[in-house]
Amino acid sequence: MTVNHALKLRSRPDGMVKRDDFEIVEEPAREPGDGEFRVKVEYVSLDPAMRGWIAPGKSYVPPVELGATMRAFAAGIVDSSNHPGFRPGEAVAGMLGVQRYAISKGERCFKVDPSRAPLERWIGGLGMPGQTAYFGLLEIGRPQPGETVVVSAASGAVGSLVGQIAKIKGSRAVGIAGGPEKCRYVVEELGFDACVDYKAGNLAADLRAACPDGIDVYFENVGGEILDAVLAQMNLFGRIPVCGLISAYNATAPVAGPTNFRSILVNRLTVRGFIVFDFQEKIADANEQLGAWHAEGRLKMREDVREGGLEAFPDVLNLLYTGGNFGKLVLKL
Amino acid sequence: MTVNHALKLRSRPDGMVKRDDFEIVEEPAREPGDGEFRVKVEYVSLDPAMRGWIAPGKSYVPPVELGATMRAFAAGIVDSSNHPGFRPGEAVAGMLGVQRYAISKGERCFKVDPSRAPLERWIGGLGMPGQTAYFGLLEIGRPQPGETVVVSAASGAVGSLVGQIAKIKGSRAVGIAGGPEKCRYVVEELGFDACVDYKAGNLAADLRAACPDGIDVYFENVGGEILDAVLAQMNLFGRIPVCGLISAYNATAPVAGPTNFRSILVNRLTVRGFIVFDFQEKIADANEQLGAWHAEGRLKMREDVREGGLEAFPDVLNLLYTGGNFGKLVLKL
Repeated sequence: MTVNHALKLRSRPDGMVKRDDFEIVEEPAREPGDGEFRVKVEYVSLDPAMRGWIAPGKSYVPPVELGATMRAFAAGIVDSSNHPGFRPGEAVAGMLGVQRYAISKGERCFKVDPSRAPLERWIGGLGMPGQTAYFGLLEIGRPQPGETVVVSAASGAVGSLVGQIAKIKGSRAVGIAGGPEKCRYVVEELGFDACVDYKAGNLAADLRAACPDGIDVYFENVGGEILDAVLAQMNLFGRIPVCGLISAYNATAPVAGPTNFRSILVNRLTVRGFIVFDFQEKIADANEQLGAWHAEGRLKMREDVREGGLEAFPDVLNLLYTGGNFGKLVLKL
Repeated sequence: MTVNHALKLRSRPDGMVKRDDFEIVEEPAREPGDGEFRVKVEYVSLDPAMRGWIAPGKSYVPPVELGATMRAFAAGIVDSSNHPGFRPGEAVAGMLGVQRYAISKGERCFKVDPSRAPLERWIGGLGMPGQTAYFGLLEIGRPQPGETVVVSAASGAVGSLVGQIAKIKGSRAVGIAGGPEKCRYVVEELGFDACVDYKAGNLAADLRAACPDGIDVYFENVGGEILDAVLAQMNLFGRIPVCGLISAYNATAPVAGPTNFRSILVNRLTVRGFIVFDFQEKIADANEQLGAWHAEGRLKMREDVREGGLEAFPDVLNLLYTGGNFGKLVLKL
């Protein structure tokens, strides 16, 4: 009999996630029923939104219930199948959860091609984070040639693609990242025009130097002081796709909003929140375009793969909120 | 010789406007040159945006220079003319400034018809405030039948029209205003479905009671705590046209942004700042539609006309920021 190990939510964290907010449960791996298949999960995606999924408040998806398996995008290999579209041995990525064996009916689960890119990349730049960058930038940001696009968390899974797609579209790409190593990577490896180190202590001035013509599009991943600094430098009719506000996800008290909110009025900005599922009907186009750019070598991607199995999940997740990862954060099971 | 009296900006106010931030200068009224006409100004519009026009910082129009005549929309009668399109005796409204006699080339100055509505209304509901309500609600808010539209400063020049236009479009209209008298007016005279008194001390609960299905469109005039309360009750894919943030216009220190900024992400809101000039190419349509609704008795408008001449301007202007006016605030010269 196959044994599953699943990470279950035991308590809703207060502030940063702790190990004992979760427990690992050993249980028999269920056999796939009619129209189902079973996946042996190899890689689990760590995404900033996860902190919201285990918070009690209203968010864009229902919270993970106490006692339920932690929700996650993951990639693995079909292990047995009663589903006509998925055969054993095929590689898949989808909403499979933080567990060793997952049952799927094929909803939000896609076959992927490991010959085109390693398995972990299909939950990264070629998966949801890539689609997120694509839709947020192109559908909401709508960068024009010569415009300046700024993205925070620029070395991360989403941010790294936002800047590269902005360059493909003829815009100037400026990243914001934490520390000289990440900033060097963003410019030298990813090809952004500049990258501002928000930890260097001169955010407003450094941003102004990197964006001499102001900012037309700001792809927002972080919120907090960085959002405030950017708002002060936005150009007329600028666009701000709001993808994430990671700086506030572990807050234990109400978070102050941006002092420069008034820039929205003065500069007639459009600020729009989104998640990737809002563009579900265009997802095939996004995947095709991202795959093509990747194949042409125009999109560089970097995964930060961590070992340690299910036990390591809480600690690895916290890396996202401390800037401890470098590239798309993935847990190898 | 005709004598002009003009209100000139003497100093940039710190906080609320004071009388000695301005001085009244007596000077000969200039005769109109070639292609110009002169207007005897009868009514000056007091608008929340004025506080921004005399602030030092960047705003959506260049600030009024020290020593210059205070900028204002105003209405009056053409007194002499060398312009082919404007004849003596005709009524006009436009950017004429806070002064007794104004020279115009006809730019941003329109002939109005005093037989259709009193002169002061052409700088109110049938002028820029009406156009502002029209464009912000219909172009950005895009209310659908059955949706809930909330507007702050609901008894004011812009807000009163936002709710009435929302009703015309088949939406539920909920106002927010200060005090029971204004709230009664908003519901009983203007025909809103409900009006919440933000001074009553139960804003969040009263708003929830008035909007049992949540809020789809919030037309923002005020900012501050009201914005925060509304953000917490917005529905998925809601729209927030940002027309004004009057609660912050006299601030002498940085203003905290909305604590519930995250609602933009969670509910995938669109927040967009605008001013009426952003829709300049559609202004004739707006005027025609507003005029037609007004003629049909479907748009009620109320002016709060103050006497006292140029000397009274600073005190009258401050009424806007304390909620001391009731209806479109106008100064009669």
